[in-house]
Amino acid sequence: MTREEALALDRADPLASRRDLFELEEGLIYLDGNSLGALPKAVKGRLAEAVEAEWGRGLIRSWNDANWIDLPSRVGARIAALIGAAPDEVIAADSTSVNLFKLAAGAMALRPGRKVILSEPGNFPTDLYILQGLGQFMPGIELRLVEPGGLPDALDDSVALLLLTHAHYKTGQLHDMKALTTWAHEVGALALWDLSHSAGALEVDLNGANADLAVGCGYKYLNGGPGAPAFAFVARRHQADFQSPLTGWMGHAAPFAFSDDYVPGQGMLRALCGTPSVLGLTALEAALTAFDGVAMSALRAKSRALGDLFLDLVEERCPGLGVACPRDSAKRGSQVSLTHPNGYPIVQALIARGVVGDFRAPDVLRFGLTPLYARYVDVWDAVEHLVQVMAREEWREPRFNQVAAVT
Amino acid sequence: MTREEALALDRADPLASRRDLFELEEGLIYLDGNSLGALPKAVKGRLAEAVEAEWGRGLIRSWNDANWIDLPSRVGARIAALIGAAPDEVIAADSTSVNLFKLAAGAMALRPGRKVILSEPGNFPTDLYILQGLGQFMPGIELRLVEPGGLPDALDDSVALLLLTHAHYKTGQLHDMKALTTWAHEVGALALWDLSHSAGALEVDLNGANADLAVGCGYKYLNGGPGAPAFAFVARRHQADFQSPLTGWMGHAAPFAFSDDYVPGQGMLRALCGTPSVLGLTALEAALTAFDGVAMSALRAKSRALGDLFLDLVEERCPGLGVACPRDSAKRGSQVSLTHPNGYPIVQALIARGVVGDFRAPDVLRFGLTPLYARYVDVWDAVEHLVQVMAREEWREPRFNQVAAVT
Repeated sequence: MTREEALALDRADPLASRRDLFELEEGLIYLDGNSLGALPKAVKGRLAEAVEAEWGRGLIRSWNDANWIDLPSRVGARIAALIGAAPDEVIAADSTSVNLFKLAAGAMALRPGRKVILSEPGNFPTDLYILQGLGQFMPGIELRLVEPGGLPDALDDSVALLLLTHAHYKTGQLHDMKALTTWAHEVGALALWDLSHSAGALEVDLNGANADLAVGCGYKYLNGGPGAPAFAFVARRHQADFQSPLTGWMGHAAPFAFSDDYVPGQGMLRALCGTPSVLGLTALEAALTAFDGVAMSALRAKSRALGDLFLDLVEERCPGLGVACPRDSAKRGSQVSLTHPNGYPIVQALIARGVVGDFRAPDVLRFGLTPLYARYVDVWDAVEHLVQVMAREEWREPRFNQVAAVT
Repeated sequence: MTREEALALDRADPLASRRDLFELEEGLIYLDGNSLGALPKAVKGRLAEAVEAEWGRGLIRSWNDANWIDLPSRVGARIAALIGAAPDEVIAADSTSVNLFKLAAGAMALRPGRKVILSEPGNFPTDLYILQGLGQFMPGIELRLVEPGGLPDALDDSVALLLLTHAHYKTGQLHDMKALTTWAHEVGALALWDLSHSAGALEVDLNGANADLAVGCGYKYLNGGPGAPAFAFVARRHQADFQSPLTGWMGHAAPFAFSDDYVPGQGMLRALCGTPSVLGLTALEAALTAFDGVAMSALRAKSRALGDLFLDLVEERCPGLGVACPRDSAKRGSQVSLTHPNGYPIVQALIARGVVGDFRAPDVLRFGLTPLYARYVDVWDAVEHLVQVMAREEWREPRFNQVAAVT
């Protein structure tokens, strides 16, 4: 594949015009949308309006007049459409970690008598950390970590909950959501899916897989901005019995009755806790308009093609680099993961050239492919820069070997 | 007191110029800063810069380059200065409700063997709700609610934690933080103070009172915007032993090591959970600059004088209204609470006249006095409008009797 051929693919890309919805500096090749999605142009004006008109002039009245009170449900419904859920099965608020705690604790209450939570080692750390914290405070919980191949065998009738991340943050490896959920159900366990690295980039079909619970991130492929509110999904069949341990006033059936006793709200409202971030939800709501009219199947097809192109070019031109992600795009999330012992400074050298990916210890170079704005030519140019960084050994420069606070 | 005399007080007010730091529409009398603080002018430009430059152009690099990673500590240190805490004792993130859960659960772990949490009926609902949820998931916890007068006697060696709101949200009644904390310590209990209705409006001296734990709200008197991040305080002497149940990755000692096992971070960092709202923290940080160079004693003196003026005028001119807040300003938070059986439509009629307070069931008309921007003439005019609403019985109009979603 030549650069001209990559440009031709972009000209033929039915999603090409979506890139115009984002602020992306000329010359920047941004392949880190799986850490922080780019800024949708719609956010700037909408957020300024929310600040100046709704907060500044409407003040407290905007809870009604600007309908702030419905933001968590309204944004949740938009996300639901991207992940195969019904509009009333998703709510947006708090962080992914906080939502994991709510749903994992809630799952234990739905499966009384069972004490095991099953996950995999190397799952996204916050998933494991939250389960560890939960185990400290709910006595008797056993966190069982099993390599993916052993998960079906590890599912037995002691398991209350199977908690997995759909697309692995480091390798991009996809779990078979439907098969694993079915196996969990066969032993009476529930399945909780972390969609942080799949929502907005892959075809996710929670209800098609009969998933029980899910959480996901607002600031990766959903482009909601740094620290954007996350989301939570509880299948409708579980909602009436679902109990969150984080029984804040916004989850109450009548928050403004100010009664002393907690009564859980209807449906997903009971998954709310404190006052949600109105500014964060407003930015996320505006960001989600970039998905209007886009079929997830089209996004997924482009994402797979971008990843295949990336890997083809790397295999052809970068013999010193390993491949940590599945070669089969059907089993790969919307990212490419390469390996090299000097991964960290190589990534820094690429960033200095305007190719922004990231590094994950011990040796993974990670490149997120956001099909809404990544172009075939970006992939081609990224590999060209990578070839040059390797050929010139630019990564040996001391400045690329200084570890920053956030890497 | 005549209107002219009120205007003279404003001319002599050493804090008068602070009002210019806020966006407040001409003619609006905003007395609901205890629900949602007004928009500080500094927020607009700072937030636009964070969106356009830091998110839009800096993208993921801004975690380092714009120092997003330090926002929770940096904003916490600013709040610490307003509440008598050391800079490293406060962190800003999540909601008040989520922080209550972290600290109440953490307190139980600091007092193993003790099962009682003591609070008062009618405490701000989310405080009670969170304790109820915690009790569901930490077996054996007993929530004991005792009227304020009975609290000293109810403190015994079964009590792990005394949790109170410093300034009561409905009546404005202040607890004696130092005395109650001392009594709690005498029986070996910890004291957790909810400062939602006092931080930024009163002189709070957490360390002077030897308080153990505290939480508070970012969107009331701190003016951080709708759903702003809240804060948490853990006294330095408890930090090494403090364990949060919400062990998200941002509370880890090395979040970017992506290890499987949770190790709590240094000091207040362990009170973080998921990725905090960068946009929310940025707005809050800008909002807090309105306090630069202001002595809390000066704010408090003005707040007391505003409240006294309000009550003097109401007693003189509104014979049909009761007073639900302490008459003694030393015992009153930064608000005035009146009572009337038709409180709801009276508040709505006032709002229609541009006097924004709020209603709290069953019969409380609540007027927050934010000393950074409330004026003596605002108080005078508010009472004049109240006199007219009562004299003309405007509250009988049907439109004022329609209950909105958020009241």
